[in-house]
Amino acid sequence: MDKLIIIKIGGNIIDDERKLSLFLNDFATINANKILIHGGGKLATRLAEQMNTPQQLVDGRRITDAETLKIVTMVYAGYINKNIVALLQANGCNAIGLTGADGNAILAHKRVNATIDYGFVGDVDSVDASLFTTLLGKGLCPVLSPITHDKNGQLLNTNADTIAQEAAKALSAFYDIELIYSFEKNGVLLDIGNENSVIKKLNTAYYSELKREGKIFAGMIPKLDNAFSALKNGVKKVIIGKAEEIQLLLSGDKGTSISHD
Amino acid sequence: MDKLIIIKIGGNIIDDERKLSLFLNDFATINANKILIHGGGKLATRLAEQMNTPQQLVDGRRITDAETLKIVTMVYAGYINKNIVALLQANGCNAIGLTGADGNAILAHKRVNATIDYGFVGDVDSVDASLFTTLLGKGLCPVLSPITHDKNGQLLNTNADTIAQEAAKALSAFYDIELIYSFEKNGVLLDIGNENSVIKKLNTAYYSELKREGKIFAGMIPKLDNAFSALKNGVKKVIIGKAEEIQLLLSGDKGTSISHD
Repeated sequence: MDKLIIIKIGGNIIDDERKLSLFLNDFATINANKILIHGGGKLATRLAEQMNTPQQLVDGRRITDAETLKIVTMVYAGYINKNIVALLQANGCNAIGLTGADGNAILAHKRVNATIDYGFVGDVDSVDASLFTTLLGKGLCPVLSPITHDKNGQLLNTNADTIAQEAAKALSAFYDIELIYSFEKNGVLLDIGNENSVIKKLNTAYYSELKREGKIFAGMIPKLDNAFSALKNGVKKVIIGKAEEIQLLLSGDKGTSISHD
Repeated sequence: MDKLIIIKIGGNIIDDERKLSLFLNDFATINANKILIHGGGKLATRLAEQMNTPQQLVDGRRITDAETLKIVTMVYAGYINKNIVALLQANGCNAIGLTGADGNAILAHKRVNATIDYGFVGDVDSVDASLFTTLLGKGLCPVLSPITHDKNGQLLNTNADTIAQEAAKALSAFYDIELIYSFEKNGVLLDIGNENSVIKKLNTAYYSELKREGKIFAGMIPKLDNAFSALKNGVKKVIIGKAEEIQLLLSGDKGTSISHD
């Protein structure tokens, strides 16, 4: 099977023009099938402030009301997505920007929760693998923004980590997949205050042990649970580390490499 | 050759939620290869006001400065494009939203003008026919927003009529093309004040005669020159009329049908 590299970048890269540009230069040189998934960053919050749209919080959680959905659709699917695509095109990478609505790429439903109404937040139901295999087969590089739809005309705000994971699972029948979650740290750290304490390799047994001993930072657990879930569903390799070091993550010289055993 | 219907809709439809929804219902039922191109409407102007971004006018012409480009990218490529795509998906039409940067679909250059700097406005250089034939061949319906790029990382604001015309010309080698320019009137009118004075058929000779006699409304001339230019470049048929009557335009029962002779 051909290799497919799926990389998720977060807000820390998107908010920093210089870092984003350097990352996209590096990303364009990756000589394999590839998909980029980007999160949101602070632009949406800044636009909401500029538009005097107050942010709705319920029990400390951000709610995607109709006005917020409009803002994230403009910022994520419009401004951020199209600028990333244009920069990749300038670097010779034939990028094509997509939301989950485009080509019915990612179908979701409005989140059902007994206690909190999250508003227009989508949980993923399915990923159309055939759309991606077609685009990748034509040498195109899909760039996904974290907006999905419910096929009833409703756009939905969706977590970018989840989109990366679901795309990786759905495409694992067609490609050998390496899934890279990039964030602001060097990798999964044994000591959250020490950037030099990166765990080089993490497997199921070691992860269980670290969790039992309370040595995994709580904020890291959903990301790692996602990673192990992806591995259980056919994804070959998951790597966690800094987007600025994407080449070193891919070569295995930096970051945390996660595997079953 | 297979038929391809290219339809351009303008601001009057985009700004009216009910009309847009009815149009998209009708559009989804068209049983042929199809491409939709949408203009901007008043949303971008309203957002600019909300953000206190003054509109730059030079000699009465709107200038796309950096902040305006950001706004039109958010509104055209984000909000309008993705909502149209989601509504078409709800109607069973497998739409895929694109700017000219996506898949390098439409390459443009920043307008060069000796007297006015239009800012980030793009004039079209080329349309990648192979991208469109691939997408159409997979049963997808491209939905184009009027944003292009220069392949050096710069997005550009581009006239939607021009995009429709250039796409029609580039694809005329592969399809029998009907190009429909929809606007707020019933068609090309003999008397601008009388909606019942639609010219049913307009050919080169009749157009020359009407122009000579000063019977064509000045604002119509660029649109008609575009139409005849498209016909000269391989497009089979051009129709001008109301988007609300798309089925009647296609059947030839309404609007102005334009041909060489």
